[in-house]
Amino acid sequence: MPRQSLIGGPDLAYFVVTPTEPGVTIMNILHIDSSIFGDNSATKHLSAQVMARLGAAYPGANIMTRDLGADPLPHLTGADVAARGTVADPVLAEFKAANIIVICSPMYNFGISSQLKAWIDRIGVAGETFRYTAEGPAGLMQGKQVIVLTARGSDFSAPAFAAMDHQEPHLRTFFAFIGVDDVTFIHAQGLALSPDARGPAIAKAEAQIAALDLPSIHRIAA
Amino acid sequence: MPRQSLIGGPDLAYFVVTPTEPGVTIMNILHIDSSIFGDNSATKHLSAQVMARLGAAYPGANIMTRDLGADPLPHLTGADVAARGTVADPVLAEFKAANIIVICSPMYNFGISSQLKAWIDRIGVAGETFRYTAEGPAGLMQGKQVIVLTARGSDFSAPAFAAMDHQEPHLRTFFAFIGVDDVTFIHAQGLALSPDARGPAIAKAEAQIAALDLPSIHRIAA
Repeated sequence: MPRQSLIGGPDLAYFVVTPTEPGVTIMNILHIDSSIFGDNSATKHLSAQVMARLGAAYPGANIMTRDLGADPLPHLTGADVAARGTVADPVLAEFKAANIIVICSPMYNFGISSQLKAWIDRIGVAGETFRYTAEGPAGLMQGKQVIVLTARGSDFSAPAFAAMDHQEPHLRTFFAFIGVDDVTFIHAQGLALSPDARGPAIAKAEAQIAALDLPSIHRIAA
Repeated sequence: MPRQSLIGGPDLAYFVVTPTEPGVTIMNILHIDSSIFGDNSATKHLSAQVMARLGAAYPGANIMTRDLGADPLPHLTGADVAARGTVADPVLAEFKAANIIVICSPMYNFGISSQLKAWIDRIGVAGETFRYTAEGPAGLMQGKQVIVLTARGSDFSAPAFAAMDHQEPHLRTFFAFIGVDDVTFIHAQGLALSPDARGPAIAKAEAQIAALDLPSIHRIAA
């Protein structure tokens, strides 16, 4: 039997399964939405498709879900930072337990949402996801796979816009810093360029999701 | 007499002065702190020095202050976006009224704080700070000067770190987008590199503040 452990407090309870028997492959999947537009969200639409594929590929997976748009985390405070090491943070525990993390990241004002930043600021914790060494900081989160679904009003793959993308490079820097080297971005670009732009842009992202090479996702060695 | 108008709601009341007589120069200065570390904040320490210089240079200036660390704005919501145009936002009104904006931006996890992002997301408003044209979006906020004071644990001017700075390029993109072309950054870098690093790094930023060329700041033509 895999060992089950409880993460969270009164308003949050996820069972995270840790493989204890040789040959058993267990997958913990963390699904983070962060759009403020609820059912009209392009990224939520896309993340549902990723989760459907993952669910089919890993039928025994444990799914942890956090909708930062509907239930935002408060901004990180100095008191939160001071309490690190003495108070367990379920947000951090979920992330550390997850093998695959699916993140919805709508672009607002050229960057990630403040909701997603408040999540990031709970993940970047010295001694937990990275550590300081004599040679500088070193990430501790090797072996995870992150899939990021973005939605952008303009097409930031166009040369004139590429330098204005402060979303993908920021997230890549952060995840590389904590040791996550397997990060895949799927963009729905140019959604607001014209009334007819949204459908084809989402269809293109959907095609990329359908073609995602799931076997490349790390399986946990028992 | 300059005309005075009230911005804000029950918990906020700033008088913003608009010049009404020829030859009168009136300055509205917006001071934004965003550190979560209160009195231990390096950027707050530096912004106080900038504000002292501005106060001496413009003795009649109206000072608007917002401490996003102590009194954070909530994350922007879909309902906030839907209400635009029907509900006045004092955060936006302050910014539009300001001639000089002094922004404290500690770097957290390679980017701006979620507190500052929640502020940015209230400033980037179509029809207010930029507009859509047949040639694409166009900024409307020409003539303002922005001074940004940052604090960073590492020294991001070092070649190995420059590509990991997702704070200054992000803010520059955003302010350029809304038409603000006069943005000055003063960085306190490498504060956490060693126990002895903080003092010299802050002293270097202080020297840059002392040398700020205030006459270059735009005076408002009456």
